[in-house]
Amino acid sequence: MKVAGGFVFVSGTSSRRPDNTFAGVSVDEFGTTDLDIRAQTRAVIENIADLLRSVGAELTDLVQVTSYLVNMNDFGGYNEVWAEFFDATGPTRTTVAVHQLPHPHLLIEMQAVALLPEGGQP
Amino acid sequence: MKVAGGFVFVSGTSSRRPDNTFAGVSVDEFGTTDLDIRAQTRAVIENIADLLRSVGAELTDLVQVTSYLVNMNDFGGYNEVWAEFFDATGPTRTTVAVHQLPHPHLLIEMQAVALLPEGGQP
Amino acid sequence: MKVAGGFVFVSGTSSRRPDNTFAGVSVDEFGTTDLDIRAQTRAVIENIADLLRSVGAELTDLVQVTSYLVNMNDFGGYNEVWAEFFDATGPTRTTVAVHQLPHPHLLIEMQAVALLPEGGQP
Amino acid sequence: MKVAGGFVFVSGTSSRRPDNTFAGVSVDEFGTTDLDIRAQTRAVIENIADLLRSVGAELTDLVQVTSYLVNMNDFGGYNEVWAEFFDATGPTRTTVAVHQLPHPHLLIEMQAVALLPEGGQP
Amino acid sequence: MKVAGGFVFVSGTSSRRPDNTFAGVSVDEFGTTDLDIRAQTRAVIENIADLLRSVGAELTDLVQVTSYLVNMNDFGGYNEVWAEFFDATGPTRTTVAVHQLPHPHLLIEMQAVALLPEGGQP
Amino acid sequence: MKVAGGFVFVSGTSSRRPDNTFAGVSVDEFGTTDLDIRAQTRAVIENIADLLRSVGAELTDLVQVTSYLVNMNDFGGYNEVWAEFFDATGPTRTTVAVHQLPHPHLLIEMQAVALLPEGGQP
Repeated sequence: MKVAGGFVFVSGTSSRRPDNTFAGVSVDEFGTTDLDIRAQTRAVIENIADLLRSVGAELTDLVQVTSYLVNMNDFGGYNEVWAEFFDATGPTRTTVAVHQLPHPHLLIEMQAVALLPEGGQP
Repeated sequence: MKVAGGFVFVSGTSSRRPDNTFAGVSVDEFGTTDLDIRAQTRAVIENIADLLRSVGAELTDLVQVTSYLVNMNDFGGYNEVWAEFFDATGPTRTTVAVHQLPHPHLLIEMQAVALLPEGGQP
Repeated sequence: MKVAGGFVFVSGTSSRRPDNTFAGVSVDEFGTTDLDIRAQTRAVIENIADLLRSVGAELTDLVQVTSYLVNMNDFGGYNEVWAEFFDATGPTRTTVAVHQLPHPHLLIEMQAVALLPEGGQP
Repeated sequence: MKVAGGFVFVSGTSSRRPDNTFAGVSVDEFGTTDLDIRAQTRAVIENIADLLRSVGAELTDLVQVTSYLVNMNDFGGYNEVWAEFFDATGPTRTTVAVHQLPHPHLLIEMQAVALLPEGGQP
Repeated sequence: MKVAGGFVFVSGTSSRRPDNTFAGVSVDEFGTTDLDIRAQTRAVIENIADLLRSVGAELTDLVQVTSYLVNMNDFGGYNEVWAEFFDATGPTRTTVAVHQLPHPHLLIEMQAVALLPEGGQP
Repeated sequence: MKVAGGFVFVSGTSSRRPDNTFAGVSVDEFGTTDLDIRAQTRAVIENIADLLRSVGAELTDLVQVTSYLVNMNDFGGYNEVWAEFFDATGPTRTTVAVHQLPHPHLLIEMQAVALLPEGGQP
């Protein structure tokens, strides 16, 4: 995360947990994956909220979100969880399905820009 | 669209018309599509112009455009229409072909950032 | 490149050289390519540094980088070269593998935003 | 379908129903899809069984199946339904995820070759 | 091409001409391509016909064709040319869009199996 | 593998070893992969040779190979290893890059058909 020129820039954020496992991922012994777009989307947004909080901002300060899925069939589940956090006053949103994300178990990553609120740091 | 910190952030914009059909799309009874990159590109740029106008900005205020195609063979037609609107003083541009856009009939979406001109609102 | 509102916006940048050849690309007579992610990544970052320098900024002013690969197996080599230029205080970074870049020999393009330093132009 | 040289060649087969709708597909008014890999896989295999039956063959006569998915995260559900029809004595199988199938609502198509049983026609 | 067990196996065939250029491909000085699915499809089928003729077979002997496109939006043009050569008594057909073909200018390759006619060689 | 009608059908074959690890794959603690197309191609061909041997056939009996890569930039290395095993009298070959193979560490799988030699079993 980077605070500059009155904005907060957030790196591409996944559902990675502090212990380097991912929310919304289970893999059996043969490498067959069971990946949950709803759980991953929720974890990504909560990870972004945590980052923003550390500089005095919150989700309502977001102005631009770019969502990278790997499969557009996940759009429905992703959109459903999005609507739990944001309404029509929420950030602008761009959603594309890319070829691959950095880890094969990821269904979604989000990149974001927020406006640094007055009193936010630094 | 979101106005914040002196900039205008525009959501990923397609060739969608107000009636939820798309410019540059025709589909026959078997689901075989005839998609027109030139018509779609023109509609996307005009949709963005409409959005900017609603806050007192215009296409010349754009500073950053990210264009998402689904097939790099469309680059030629896209680039041709781009040149009808922008010259070397136009916005910075990044063009990638992604795996999928939110609707299977879309050949292009653009995400954009403009500088809010003086007198622009709010 | 575009300077506006205190920021420098950099277009999608490849390893293209001034003579329109690409760093990190060799192609044999049958069209079989030998593409070098390390050489391409280094050339992209140096091209961005050149652009920034022309308005009085440098790599340490970058606040947001979006890296578009075409194959996530290149992540290791890309990341290794990134670490030669940036440490934990570097720009925020988002890395995705897209379906295609504008030229078939490209393994990477980067889009960037920098903060215009005081004294930078214009 | 084509019978030749003692074999039955089956065209790429989807979950298409006689009325040109697809098993395992529902789409809401915004074009957001809800696609069911289990239902589609079952329908594909049953469609192939119907075709084979028309020349006096059955699923146990299959010798080669090529399964085209569009997303490897569907492997688990596909494999589960496969196991309802075939055990270790079943046909050879090759499974790949392609970029696109002929219709955007398809998650799977299968191409197959069977041995024409004695007494099969023609 | 390989004749064995009463069948003719044809390698993945493109629109490549004897001089190593491709039918249906034009590229300008910036590497922007103009690729013609109809011309490429026609050239592929004619290349396969030439191969079959060399062992005493012809297109009507084909029993299985696998068509690899790179973009399903080309399906319409491909299908139109296919119908110039084959009717409902033609070979079984499987059509998928893959991520990439061996050369970036190719829109289509076909893999085929024919029944060796009586009197065919060897 | 399936022997039928005088042919041997080989399932999609990867570089998987008997202990379920893969030849040509190493992964570091962050999940960054180092994948070797030459090692994987060699292992795939040797795995197919082992399978054929078990029914009294060998690589020279192959008549059709379909090679599924995930990235056409691997074509050079793959082709180099292919040439160690096969010359112009080898099997017909079709090579495409698909979106995904069943395991994220695989760079290649091959599907094959061989002619069952006289005296082969059953």
